[in-house]
Amino acid sequence: MEPLFELALRIPPRGSRNLLRSLYAQLRDAIVDGRLRAGQRMPSTRALASLYGLSRNTAIAAYDSLSGEGYLETRHGSGTYVVARVPRLAQRKPNSAHGTFDARLNPLWRDLQLPSQERRAAVAPAVSFPVGVPDTRLFPFEVWHRLLTRAQRLLSRSPVESRDSHGSLALREAIARHASLTRALACRPDDIIVTAGAQQAFDLLARILITPHRTVVATEDPGYGRLRGVLRAAGARIVPVPVDSEGLVVDRLPRQARVICVTPSHQFPLGTVMSMNRRTALLERARAHGAVIIEDDYDCEFRFGATPLDALQTLDRLEHVFYVGTFSKSLFPGIRLGFVVAPAWARAAVAAAKRYADGSCPDLMQETLASFITEGHLARHVRKMRQVYAERRSALLEGLHTQLSRWLEPIPAAAGLHVTALCKPSADGRTLLQRAQGCGVELSPLECCYLGESRKAGFVLGYGATETSAIITGLSMLHRAWKR
Amino acid sequence: MEPLFELALRIPPRGSRNLLRSLYAQLRDAIVDGRLRAGQRMPSTRALASLYGLSRNTAIAAYDSLSGEGYLETRHGSGTYVVARVPRLAQRKPNSAHGTFDARLNPLWRDLQLPSQERRAAVAPAVSFPVGVPDTRLFPFEVWHRLLTRAQRLLSRSPVESRDSHGSLALREAIARHASLTRALACRPDDIIVTAGAQQAFDLLARILITPHRTVVATEDPGYGRLRGVLRAAGARIVPVPVDSEGLVVDRLPRQARVICVTPSHQFPLGTVMSMNRRTALLERARAHGAVIIEDDYDCEFRFGATPLDALQTLDRLEHVFYVGTFSKSLFPGIRLGFVVAPAWARAAVAAAKRYADGSCPDLMQETLASFITEGHLARHVRKMRQVYAERRSALLEGLHTQLSRWLEPIPAAAGLHVTALCKPSADGRTLLQRAQGCGVELSPLECCYLGESRKAGFVLGYGATETSAIITGLSMLHRAWKR
Repeated sequence: MEPLFELALRIPPRGSRNLLRSLYAQLRDAIVDGRLRAGQRMPSTRALASLYGLSRNTAIAAYDSLSGEGYLETRHGSGTYVVARVPRLAQRKPNSAHGTFDARLNPLWRDLQLPSQERRAAVAPAVSFPVGVPDTRLFPFEVWHRLLTRAQRLLSRSPVESRDSHGSLALREAIARHASLTRALACRPDDIIVTAGAQQAFDLLARILITPHRTVVATEDPGYGRLRGVLRAAGARIVPVPVDSEGLVVDRLPRQARVICVTPSHQFPLGTVMSMNRRTALLERARAHGAVIIEDDYDCEFRFGATPLDALQTLDRLEHVFYVGTFSKSLFPGIRLGFVVAPAWARAAVAAAKRYADGSCPDLMQETLASFITEGHLARHVRKMRQVYAERRSALLEGLHTQLSRWLEPIPAAAGLHVTALCKPSADGRTLLQRAQGCGVELSPLECCYLGESRKAGFVLGYGATETSAIITGLSMLHRAWKR
Repeated sequence: MEPLFELALRIPPRGSRNLLRSLYAQLRDAIVDGRLRAGQRMPSTRALASLYGLSRNTAIAAYDSLSGEGYLETRHGSGTYVVARVPRLAQRKPNSAHGTFDARLNPLWRDLQLPSQERRAAVAPAVSFPVGVPDTRLFPFEVWHRLLTRAQRLLSRSPVESRDSHGSLALREAIARHASLTRALACRPDDIIVTAGAQQAFDLLARILITPHRTVVATEDPGYGRLRGVLRAAGARIVPVPVDSEGLVVDRLPRQARVICVTPSHQFPLGTVMSMNRRTALLERARAHGAVIIEDDYDCEFRFGATPLDALQTLDRLEHVFYVGTFSKSLFPGIRLGFVVAPAWARAAVAAAKRYADGSCPDLMQETLASFITEGHLARHVRKMRQVYAERRSALLEGLHTQLSRWLEPIPAAAGLHVTALCKPSADGRTLLQRAQGCGVELSPLECCYLGESRKAGFVLGYGATETSAIITGLSMLHRAWKR
C-alpha cells in the first residue's frame, strides 16, 4: 500500500463540491500514468479516508467511480486492485505543433495558406482605412434591441420546433420584398436561402458547384481574397481574369470556366461598374457554355449617384445567376446573416448544403432581422448612412485630389464603402507603404488583391469606419510623410 | 413614336414613392423583352409625360436611369433611342426544376440524397417521441433574456472590431472551465473552436480530414444519419462498423480507416457505453494506424447513474481525438452553438475552415452563452433537467416493461434523452410501425440509423420533449393498437 503515500494528492478542503471529482481525477491520472501500477492492490477505502483526511463515503464514491470507469476492480474478499490492462498512453505532445500541418489533413487544407491570425502592428496606427467595414457606432442599436427583446419573448413562448434549412419564412419574405424593391431582383421567398453572412453563401455555392480538381472557376483579378480561399478549399481550378474600366473582360474568360464570380455593381476592389455590354456578353457566355455566375452584391446599398443599377440576376432569364447579398455592411458584421437567391434547379442542393453545414442560422437573429426590415428600419438606416458615407467619400476624394495627387490617382466609383487609388507611374508603392506605416497610417495595398502576374500598385481606402476628421488627418499625415 | 402607346404602362398614382422605380422597370422590361425595339426612337420626355400623366421631371429621371444602365442613348439634337445592342434574353424558365439535379452540380452533391424537406404526416400525431430534442419549455428564458440584454448593451457600446474565427475568448474560457469540470477534458481556451452547433463541427472536421474519394472513414452502425451526410458530401469512403454491448467493435475497424467517428459516452442510437477495454483498444488502434477519432459527446450532460464517465479525449495523450460538444441539448437547438476541442496539430486548420465557412458565430449569441455558463446557469439548468428527464425515462422504461414487453425489449442505458427498444423476435417491426401510425403515435424506426446490411428492428424513443403524461398515454395507445 505504500506507493499511495507517495502520491501527492492535492485534497480540496472538506465540503468542497469538487472534492470527489478531484480525488477521482488524481487517482485516475496516477493509474493512467503508471504511478499506480497495473494489478497493484489499493488501500481500503477506510485506509484511504484516514490517510488523506477524507470521509469514508468520499473514498467509497471515488473507488466506485474508478471501478465504473474500468480503472479499478474489486475482488471479493480480497480488496480493490488496479486493473490488469490500463490505458498506458504516452504523454500529451507539447503544443509546439501550433499552426503546422500534418499528413492527416486533406491536402487542400494542408496547402491552403492560412489567413494570418492577427497581423497586429507593433504600434496601433493613428489612422486606418479598414476596407469593407461599416460604421457600427451609428447603428440604431436601441431599435435593434427592442426588436430583439420582442423576438426573444415570442421565441421563448413558442420555440421553433422544426427548423427550415432555407431560413425563417418571415425573414425570407422580408428579404424578397426588400430585394425586389431596392435591387429589382426577380425573387420570391422560395428562391432564397438564408446564410451565415456572404461568406457562408460562397462556401455553400463552392461546395455544390465545384468538383474538386476539375471545375474551372473564373474570378476577377484583382478580386476578393476570402472568396478565392473558399474556392481553393473546395478544390477549384481558379483562373484569374482581368478587369478593365467596363468590369470583367468577358473575352478573356477561359473556355472551360464553369463558374464565374463577379462583382458587377461595384467591382471589388477597383470600384468600377460592369457595363451593360459586358453584362449582356457575360450572360450570353454563361448560356453558351453552360456556366453559372456568382454575383456578389456586397455593398450595393451605398450608391451616391442617381443611377439605379440593376443586378445581373434581374437580367438573367435562364437561371444562370446565383445572387449573394449580405447584411454585414448595411447593418453590422457581427449579425452574421446574408442570403443567396438561387436558380430553381440548384435550390434543393443549396438548402441541403446549408443543412449539412450547420442546420440553420440562429432563430433569434433571423426573427429580429425580419422585423427590422419589415418595419422599415433597414431602409431608414441605409438612407442615413448613405449621407454619412457620401460625406466621408467626398472628404477622401477631395483630400486625395488636393494633398496626394502627386502620388495617387483615384479610380472613379459611385458606390460602396471604399475608394481605390492607383499609384502614379512616378511613385513607388512600396516606399509609400513603408512611409505610411512609419507615420502611423495603416493602408491596404492593392497588390494583395491580385492573383495573376499583372498587378497594379495602389491602395484600397475604406471610409466606412473612418470618420471625416480622421480621413482629413490621415491624408495630411501621408502628405507630410510622402513629400520628404 | 406610336409603339409606346401600345405599352400598357401601369402608372402608380402621382406622388407615389415607387413611381419612378415603376416607370423605369416597365420601360426596361419592354426594352429587354423587345417590345421596344433596338434602335427605336423614344418619345421626348415632354411627350412621355403628357401621354402618361407624369411630371416632366419624372420622365427625365426615368430616361436618365435607363441611359445610365445602358438601355437608352441620347443622340445630341436628335432625341433618345433604344440602344442598338440590348440584352435579348429568353424568358425565365418555369420553376418545374425544383429539387431536381443538374449536371452543373458537383457529383458529390448531385448524388447526395437530400433529406426529405418536411415529411409531415397527413394527420398530426397525438403523441410523438422526437429524438434528440430537449424540452425548451423548461428553459429559463427570463435569465437568458436578461443576459442577452446585457450582452447586447455591451456590444452596442463596443462592437467587436476584429472577429476571431476560434470564437469569443470569453466563451472559450467558459467552455474550457465547464468541460474540464464536467467531462474532465484536458483543454484550455486555445484548444477550442466555437462552431454553429455540433453539425458545423462535423462539417469542418470532415473538410479538413477527408480527401475526397480517398479517405476511409469508419462510422458506428447504427449511427447518426446527419453525420454520415456530412461525411459523404466531403467525399468520404464510409465503412460502417458494428456496435455491440461494449460499443464500437474495434477489431472490425478496416485497416485503412483514417477517421473513426464514435459516440463512446452514449452510443447513438443504441445508448450503450463504450467499455474501458474498447476505449483503450481504440486509442491504441488510432496510434498504430495514424488515424484520428471524432468523439461526438452529444448528450453527455444527462446521466442518471452515479458513475462519472470520462471522455475519450481525457484519455488521449497522443492527440488523436477531436472532441465535439453541443449546447443544442443542454440549452435549446435554436442557439446554434457547439464546439470542437482539437489537437494542437489540427487547430489552425479547423480555425481556417471555420473562417472560410462563415467567419464566426454571431457575437451576441456567443457572449450571452459565455455569461450563462460563467454565472452557473448552465450547471443549474442541467441539474434541473436531469431530474425531469430521469422521471420521464423511468416512466418510459416502466411503460415499456408493463405494457409493451410482448413486443419490445429496451436496451439498458444510463444517459441521454432517448431509449432504444429492439423488437422481440416474434414481433414484426413494420406491422408495429404501421399500427402505431394508425393509432396516432409517431415512432422513429431504428432501421433508418443503419448503413450496413445487418439491421436490427426496433424504435428510438426520445423523451426529451415528451412529457411524462404523454409518454404514459402514448404507450397505452401502442398497447391497444398492437395487441389486436
